[in-house]
Amino acid sequence: MPQIENEVAPNLPIAQSPHLKLWGGRFAGSTAATLEELNNSLPVDKRLWREDIEASRAWVQALLRADVLTRAEAQQLDRGLLAVHAKLATSFPSDVADEDIHSLVERMLYGEAGEVAGKLHTGRSRNDQVVTDTRLWAMRAGARVLEEVKALQAALLTQAEANIDTLMPAYTHLRRAQPVRVAHWLLSYFWALDRDRQRLVAALERVAVLPLGSGAIAGSGFNVDRTLLKELLGFRAVSANSLDAVGDRDWVCELVFVAAMTGAHLSRLAEDLIIFSSDEFGYVRLPESYTTGSSLMPQKRNPDGLELARGKAARLAGDVAGALAMLKGLPSGYNKDMQEDKALLFSAIDAMLLVLPPTRETVAQLVFNVESLQEVANSEDVLATDLADELVRRGVPFREAHGAVGRLLRAADEAKSSLKDLPADVWVGIHPAFGTGPIPRPTAQLSVEARQAVGGTGRNAVLQQLAEAQIALL
Amino acid sequence: MPQIENEVAPNLPIAQSPHLKLWGGRFAGSTAATLEELNNSLPVDKRLWREDIEASRAWVQALLRADVLTRAEAQQLDRGLLAVHAKLATSFPSDVADEDIHSLVERMLYGEAGEVAGKLHTGRSRNDQVVTDTRLWAMRAGARVLEEVKALQAALLTQAEANIDTLMPAYTHLRRAQPVRVAHWLLSYFWALDRDRQRLVAALERVAVLPLGSGAIAGSGFNVDRTLLKELLGFRAVSANSLDAVGDRDWVCELVFVAAMTGAHLSRLAEDLIIFSSDEFGYVRLPESYTTGSSLMPQKRNPDGLELARGKAARLAGDVAGALAMLKGLPSGYNKDMQEDKALLFSAIDAMLLVLPPTRETVAQLVFNVESLQEVANSEDVLATDLADELVRRGVPFREAHGAVGRLLRAADEAKSSLKDLPADVWVGIHPAFGTGPIPRPTAQLSVEARQAVGGTGRNAVLQQLAEAQIALL
Amino acid sequence: MPQIENEVAPNLPIAQSPHLKLWGGRFAGSTAATLEELNNSLPVDKRLWREDIEASRAWVQALLRADVLTRAEAQQLDRGLLAVHAKLATSFPSDVADEDIHSLVERMLYGEAGEVAGKLHTGRSRNDQVVTDTRLWAMRAGARVLEEVKALQAALLTQAEANIDTLMPAYTHLRRAQPVRVAHWLLSYFWALDRDRQRLVAALERVAVLPLGSGAIAGSGFNVDRTLLKELLGFRAVSANSLDAVGDRDWVCELVFVAAMTGAHLSRLAEDLIIFSSDEFGYVRLPESYTTGSSLMPQKRNPDGLELARGKAARLAGDVAGALAMLKGLPSGYNKDMQEDKALLFSAIDAMLLVLPPTRETVAQLVFNVESLQEVANSEDVLATDLADELVRRGVPFREAHGAVGRLLRAADEAKSSLKDLPADVWVGIHPAFGTGPIPRPTAQLSVEARQAVGGTGRNAVLQQLAEAQIALL
Amino acid sequence: MPQIENEVAPNLPIAQSPHLKLWGGRFAGSTAATLEELNNSLPVDKRLWREDIEASRAWVQALLRADVLTRAEAQQLDRGLLAVHAKLATSFPSDVADEDIHSLVERMLYGEAGEVAGKLHTGRSRNDQVVTDTRLWAMRAGARVLEEVKALQAALLTQAEANIDTLMPAYTHLRRAQPVRVAHWLLSYFWALDRDRQRLVAALERVAVLPLGSGAIAGSGFNVDRTLLKELLGFRAVSANSLDAVGDRDWVCELVFVAAMTGAHLSRLAEDLIIFSSDEFGYVRLPESYTTGSSLMPQKRNPDGLELARGKAARLAGDVAGALAMLKGLPSGYNKDMQEDKALLFSAIDAMLLVLPPTRETVAQLVFNVESLQEVANSEDVLATDLADELVRRGVPFREAHGAVGRLLRAADEAKSSLKDLPADVWVGIHPAFGTGPIPRPTAQLSVEARQAVGGTGRNAVLQQLAEAQIALL
Repeated sequence: MPQIENEVAPNLPIAQSPHLKLWGGRFAGSTAATLEELNNSLPVDKRLWREDIEASRAWVQALLRADVLTRAEAQQLDRGLLAVHAKLATSFPSDVADEDIHSLVERMLYGEAGEVAGKLHTGRSRNDQVVTDTRLWAMRAGARVLEEVKALQAALLTQAEANIDTLMPAYTHLRRAQPVRVAHWLLSYFWALDRDRQRLVAALERVAVLPLGSGAIAGSGFNVDRTLLKELLGFRAVSANSLDAVGDRDWVCELVFVAAMTGAHLSRLAEDLIIFSSDEFGYVRLPESYTTGSSLMPQKRNPDGLELARGKAARLAGDVAGALAMLKGLPSGYNKDMQEDKALLFSAIDAMLLVLPPTRETVAQLVFNVESLQEVANSEDVLATDLADELVRRGVPFREAHGAVGRLLRAADEAKSSLKDLPADVWVGIHPAFGTGPIPRPTAQLSVEARQAVGGTGRNAVLQQLAEAQIALL
Repeated sequence: MPQIENEVAPNLPIAQSPHLKLWGGRFAGSTAATLEELNNSLPVDKRLWREDIEASRAWVQALLRADVLTRAEAQQLDRGLLAVHAKLATSFPSDVADEDIHSLVERMLYGEAGEVAGKLHTGRSRNDQVVTDTRLWAMRAGARVLEEVKALQAALLTQAEANIDTLMPAYTHLRRAQPVRVAHWLLSYFWALDRDRQRLVAALERVAVLPLGSGAIAGSGFNVDRTLLKELLGFRAVSANSLDAVGDRDWVCELVFVAAMTGAHLSRLAEDLIIFSSDEFGYVRLPESYTTGSSLMPQKRNPDGLELARGKAARLAGDVAGALAMLKGLPSGYNKDMQEDKALLFSAIDAMLLVLPPTRETVAQLVFNVESLQEVANSEDVLATDLADELVRRGVPFREAHGAVGRLLRAADEAKSSLKDLPADVWVGIHPAFGTGPIPRPTAQLSVEARQAVGGTGRNAVLQQLAEAQIALL
Repeated sequence: MPQIENEVAPNLPIAQSPHLKLWGGRFAGSTAATLEELNNSLPVDKRLWREDIEASRAWVQALLRADVLTRAEAQQLDRGLLAVHAKLATSFPSDVADEDIHSLVERMLYGEAGEVAGKLHTGRSRNDQVVTDTRLWAMRAGARVLEEVKALQAALLTQAEANIDTLMPAYTHLRRAQPVRVAHWLLSYFWALDRDRQRLVAALERVAVLPLGSGAIAGSGFNVDRTLLKELLGFRAVSANSLDAVGDRDWVCELVFVAAMTGAHLSRLAEDLIIFSSDEFGYVRLPESYTTGSSLMPQKRNPDGLELARGKAARLAGDVAGALAMLKGLPSGYNKDMQEDKALLFSAIDAMLLVLPPTRETVAQLVFNVESLQEVANSEDVLATDLADELVRRGVPFREAHGAVGRLLRAADEAKSSLKDLPADVWVGIHPAFGTGPIPRPTAQLSVEARQAVGGTGRNAVLQQLAEAQIALL
Repeated sequence: MPQIENEVAPNLPIAQSPHLKLWGGRFAGSTAATLEELNNSLPVDKRLWREDIEASRAWVQALLRADVLTRAEAQQLDRGLLAVHAKLATSFPSDVADEDIHSLVERMLYGEAGEVAGKLHTGRSRNDQVVTDTRLWAMRAGARVLEEVKALQAALLTQAEANIDTLMPAYTHLRRAQPVRVAHWLLSYFWALDRDRQRLVAALERVAVLPLGSGAIAGSGFNVDRTLLKELLGFRAVSANSLDAVGDRDWVCELVFVAAMTGAHLSRLAEDLIIFSSDEFGYVRLPESYTTGSSLMPQKRNPDGLELARGKAARLAGDVAGALAMLKGLPSGYNKDMQEDKALLFSAIDAMLLVLPPTRETVAQLVFNVESLQEVANSEDVLATDLADELVRRGVPFREAHGAVGRLLRAADEAKSSLKDLPADVWVGIHPAFGTGPIPRPTAQLSVEARQAVGGTGRNAVLQQLAEAQIALL
């Protein structure tokens, strides 16, 4: 890669030069090629081109109001920026040597508006510009993520409503635990995602704070109306301190964390679905169009989408650490290390927008194997707790009842018998209270109906959950 | 380590046995020693003993109201729990073989209350018990962290008020950038910590949701009044779904993240203070009692506390990834992997409570080297932007002004001269606009006063910040 | 917590004072209590007491040879150090205020050896001392981990030898893929652990480099014989650069990484075993003594040990990031941030030593459900690839064969028929090559025997693996 | 994005269809668009196109030798693959819908070679194919990283040789500690990078193990000669177990870790250089062409390249956690989660190849401010340890000597005097041994020469280091 000249050739108009360097006066020579390569952020930050132009248009208005620009100049610049927008929307140039999106846009503006382009950067710095662009981008992308989370919640809710009366075995430690309603299991993810949504809403509120007008670090040297800027760009508040505004990226860390947390929840839902849809469990059938095949094994219908959800959760977890480590021990103010923020942010948002839609559709099109779920939900192991609870109702301390049922199950194991076929005297031999009424015969139906307290899996408790879930989605 | 018997010897009362296993009926043999060692969580969860007893006392009330206990039994249990509390407060037993704090407390309760102790665990599980204890602990510990963050903010604010009229050079890229008020620099940390506090408040609200009554996974088999439990224990809400309540730890991840984020901010403040207090910068003097010496080098006064703040930030960043990775890909419901949650949570909170107080005191006792700060703030490099701004005021497009000042500085470099000593014709030769008025002579004072927009470093802008900061601390 | 006096009371012998501060001459006042609390590393580094004494004994010999000590003084110090060792081995003091293990040992040495204790620290610094202690500790602890990894490999190998002729379905995407020998599946973990062992051996070689004699940063001011020190302490090499020796912790990062990598492998083995031992898969039975019960549900036999292995893998992954982030951006030389190294190192090694033994025993005592494994291994889906391979042998391009078998399976799905019951004309209709010989009837046995290339699951290929594995364990 | 048809239209030759799906026979319908989007790995794995073709060419030879292909077919395929190579080398197609690089190459092969293309995938799977491609890529990219690390070491060595007689203050805790040779400081990084190189060499040896021939999981169904494949592709060994070969990614984790560790070292070198080149320290001058300017502040020469090195170190630390978390808890065999491996690997290698060259050039062109370094190296604080060492030589126990020098410095502080100007009776008053010879007047030169033990900063010790460093680079 050849050395890139530091300043445009004097006779070549900026707009026709291959790049624009926004600095250079003090420098005697050119920038080293290997530094150019490392420093070049255009491949990443080009995604901000719309926001960069939008923020510049607002800045033109602020400069006009601050009497830095005449009305004619402002119009010229605004028309120029719109023309740049039109060109970039048509085709984004490749093979340009601009070091970032800001340089590219400003250079193209020279081509559209001429020398007045040189007035645009008055009183601002790339330090406040880039963080304004990135926050704008995040506000919009974050809103899309919010909608997608909500859509997944809606799919869970719809399936829950449809499956309120199907019972299934709930698992702990991937061992059959107790019967629950399928709706209850589905809603457990609904609530987790609801917290993710709360976290995202709160994070986005902290994102929607305007940094523009903070200059490089000390504030703008011109009397710009930051409230006007805020209004024009749709921010909710104006940053309180210029040094903080250009020098912190906690909002990036927070967004990446919220995405990683959501990713962790999606990875658990994916794990459940992968396991439940295995041949061995056979509890659910995934929609075929959300599975893929193998290049070698003709029989395969692999849950690739769910596995990728799990994989993305892993990377996101690492990315939170990366974002925090990026800030660790930095001196105050802007440091170039922060250039890594955008790759981390984009990757987190992209992961969400890629993973959420197929997950939602997979949930929406799940088919439950009701027979198999109910059969296991009614198995004796899954109802063991209900046996102990029955002993409690007959006056036995729970700790003693628990031990008695444990020994009963062991006796059945050893006799290679089901509980049902174990003679009554064995029951009574293990604990006399089994004889103080009929030998208990719990069912999944009785079990879930015994759990009516708020948050339990009884029918009314789940109906209440459904009602609250509907409200949460309003 | 010898094999531990699975069940207490039949003739030995539970209370006198070396441990209590809360399960075992179904098991023919004893637990393997190496599994006992791995599984044993007492060294970590013993910190929850107060919360465990408190939650059990509330549970007794719920069982009484659900008619599982008679009033006499409830009183017996409550007195027993108080007696256990008194014993543990006096001296925590070492050399016990209980596998966790719940087993220890329940075993001791047998000693105090006799066989009625066996009724305590009715309708609950360690799954809802442990997460109730841990949330209770986190609510209180989190409140202490909040207070400590606030106290550090107050120290920053006090110093800011005292140093509103001292100017200093702000840095970007650890290179002198522009003059700011010392108060402005201090407040940049105030606002970052304020966001940390907001995040912590929101996280703690999500912590204060009662899981007790969720049983192992399906809800409690007895009609417990969860609202009563919530009131007795000081929670703000009741969990909506038992499966979610026992099977998620997003609130742990969130707390660890909020601590890590705060840690990142503290690490940057630490970095600033370490650099600014070096002999070479000489901008601030750290209180001697917050520095330490070397075992070898007699001259040393090392900023150990600040360095440890930086180191803790690193570990916390890793811990967020660890917490998220713990949840990644877990099937729904409780899985034992989650036992790692407490070590991560305790370590995050401990780090905060260890680092915040000395940081606060260090800030409170900082002495600024006003002379040196002001001298550098007035150096020609730091005022270069003001030269360009002046050219703008004389009608030069900023981009051109920036280049001209760059060339001017280069000319001074090459002449090994200060700007001040550069003849006027050199200025005018570089840009004629330097000659359209007196040769500009910017000062730090003029520079900061030009930055009056909200968030800037002008005096009024900073006074406004101070006022807002006072309100934020109310 | 009261302020701790900076220097011992003049009239109180050091040995009887509550603590020894190894510095303080230059300090006018005492250290702040909150800094003492943060700075105090004794709760963590007390585990290094043996190594601290051992390294000091070697140092005494080096000082003797460098003529800093007389023979009598050296003997006095050595006897004193042995006496301190004896005391600490008997009972480690609690309630001491020493800031670290080095201060504690040196203070106790005053008690045993009198004023000559003041000569011990000549020409060394805590900077080289602590890293010497920690490396010594790591050399030994690492050797124990090596043995444990090897023991797990041996258990896998023994089970593989016993199960070479049992076939099972291998999985990809948790979907049945192709038949393999159980030995093949077991050996896949053997080889992964073998690489972990290679990595650990290489890491430990980098650990066994002696830093002692590097002083605080510039080397020792006295002519100590570092080769002698190396020999006395069992290191393999002497560090080449004092600044690097005291200021780097890459070896800690590497050890934590190697542990995390091993942890990841163990977590996958754990996942396989948890899934395979579920009721639904029913492929293996875990030894009962390596499962635990539930406090609520009497039927449970939970794979807690395996789940904890998975959980530890998550924390270790985070700890690698934490260790690397600790070093990120530190200036050269020792910085106090590095004090976090020991907690990270200890936790990584502890995790290994806790997780490996029960995993090994669980593997050793696994019971395979041969019938069920073989049945699934012979299912038609699992043999679909062999159908396609047969078509290839009949001259059909693989891509075409793959499609044909896919369509065949779909036809069977739609006919709700097994392949076996699908009429021959359906086969031939789907692809004529099915008719150019008998309708193929693959079996698991034929399938595995077709895979004889190195690394395949044919009997001879697996026998070769077993032979190589035996050699690897020598 | 419209639904993509699952199978190519029957009348359209594969080569002209917009994409090739390597599976689909069993599937009744098409793949959902949102899953296609998530699943599509071409934007990432297209970087493997050369390796994919190369591995396929070797595979053709193996199929020929296994009699799966005739010689004519093999030639046809080989020519076809070369033609695909030529096309891709000329211009890589955009707007293709192939789901990965393997599908793209195979589809293009149909265009070049016709139906025989359908024979290429015989006996292999994308599972062994992709990991073969990626390992091949990593072997080459890793070799380039090795060269770059070595080149940086060479630059450090050259500067060390040139600066052996310049003294500088070494720092601990960013506080002046003791004098060292500039060469000594530079070499401290040399040795750290040497360990990084050792780690990379070892990692690359583990990378160079051929997985091809492992099929999807059970080995190849045809008798392929894996040794031939190994030789053709330049691997060093053949994988021992097919399940391990396709299902593990520890080698990716290891490479990312080695890059992260190197990154951590580079971040520390960067930190030193950023601090040492600040106006306040003024110890080194960075080459201007390796600094950049500000869009706002004309005076700036920012060390962007060094800051980006620091930032990359942070992301890499997170990426190690991400890679390990990806593997955590995966069942054995290939799981789609692993698709994330390539993004992690590419990003780690790219970071190295971007950061190392400008760092090397920055080091090579560093200019030291000898005067300033030597002046500080000779300051009284920096020589305080030498005062204590002198007392030791006069018979004072070190602990006592350390205290005495500390008090002496305090006395000078309080008298606002230099040590040099402190009257002799003050010295003797603080410790009589100061009077048993001339008042000591240490110099940096004397200090470094007192540190002659291996690894010390004495001239001979450093010459020895230089000699060893030269050998290390051979």
